[in-house]
Amino acid sequence: MNKFSEKTIKRETIFEGKIIDLSVHDVELPNGEMSKREIVNHPGAVAVIAVTDKDEVILVEQFRKPLEKTIAEIPAGKLEKGENPLQCAKRELEEETGLVAGKWTKLTSFYTSPGFANEIIYIYLAEQLSDGQLNLDEDEFVECFKATLEEAEKLIEKEIIHDAKTIYAIQYLNLLKYRCKK
Amino acid sequence: MNKFSEKTIKRETIFEGKIIDLSVHDVELPNGEMSKREIVNHPGAVAVIAVTDKDEVILVEQFRKPLEKTIAEIPAGKLEKGENPLQCAKRELEEETGLVAGKWTKLTSFYTSPGFANEIIYIYLAEQLSDGQLNLDEDEFVECFKATLEEAEKLIEKEIIHDAKTIYAIQYLNLLKYRCKK
Repeated sequence: MNKFSEKTIKRETIFEGKIIDLSVHDVELPNGEMSKREIVNHPGAVAVIAVTDKDEVILVEQFRKPLEKTIAEIPAGKLEKGENPLQCAKRELEEETGLVAGKWTKLTSFYTSPGFANEIIYIYLAEQLSDGQLNLDEDEFVECFKATLEEAEKLIEKEIIHDAKTIYAIQYLNLLKYRCKK
Repeated sequence: MNKFSEKTIKRETIFEGKIIDLSVHDVELPNGEMSKREIVNHPGAVAVIAVTDKDEVILVEQFRKPLEKTIAEIPAGKLEKGENPLQCAKRELEEETGLVAGKWTKLTSFYTSPGFANEIIYIYLAEQLSDGQLNLDEDEFVECFKATLEEAEKLIEKEIIHDAKTIYAIQYLNLLKYRCKK
């Protein structure tokens, strides 16, 4: 679907970083006028909602510099160049939590902020957990804990869980639960 | 909460744009080592899930240059400097859809992508809709339509609705509905 599409006339690269690139596009609007679009290019990411046999989800406390605070999130990480999302999900879960999963299900995907960024996040459900090998990045400091879905919802109310991917994944499982009860 | 906090030692401004700024921080990690963080500064935004008296939600088709495609979203817009989120929500709903609402409820808020951006989105529920004054920005081309919650869920499955704020708001209303039925 490309209704109201905008054609790039000129593209200026502002920054090429470790995680993101930034460019500014001069675009031709549907009415022929010109405008500028500031665009963050991101490689995409995966997020994993890992559920124990006691129906607890694995959460990771992590300091987020853009927010200047620590929040609790589901394990996640960015895609390496050309990496398959499922392989990335398996790698990130084990690296961040030391867990491996016997059963993987792709749940969904979403764009975090399509007004200025092309970041897409693929969400996987990981079940049948067992111990693997913790292996954090050298600049990554996290602490894992478990929470039931009910506890996770209270953490959303308290804004300790406060990011799109984590809230989406928890709501997704909650909606499944309600629908199965119908 | 600031467990594992990272102290900025140096901050370099890379770009100051119309919508976003970009800076790179040299940070001191909890173990005393140094790393870099690429940070997009965003003014924050509001999103409005507007529900008609027939339980339809108002959606807006919009071309998103970062995705190079058109998707359907709930009405939304960025906060002006110092603007109250509720005032912004009222302004954006009327400007984008030509509707005003008699009843406003703040539902929730979330961070879109805390790994690299500080963008927060406040979500409001708007009810008791009536006609106001359409007033699009000069570089904004959108088309509104109505969908029931069931239709909106099908649009999520088809990835026509595919962004965090719209999915979160629709799931939020769905969960409320299921809980009220219990």
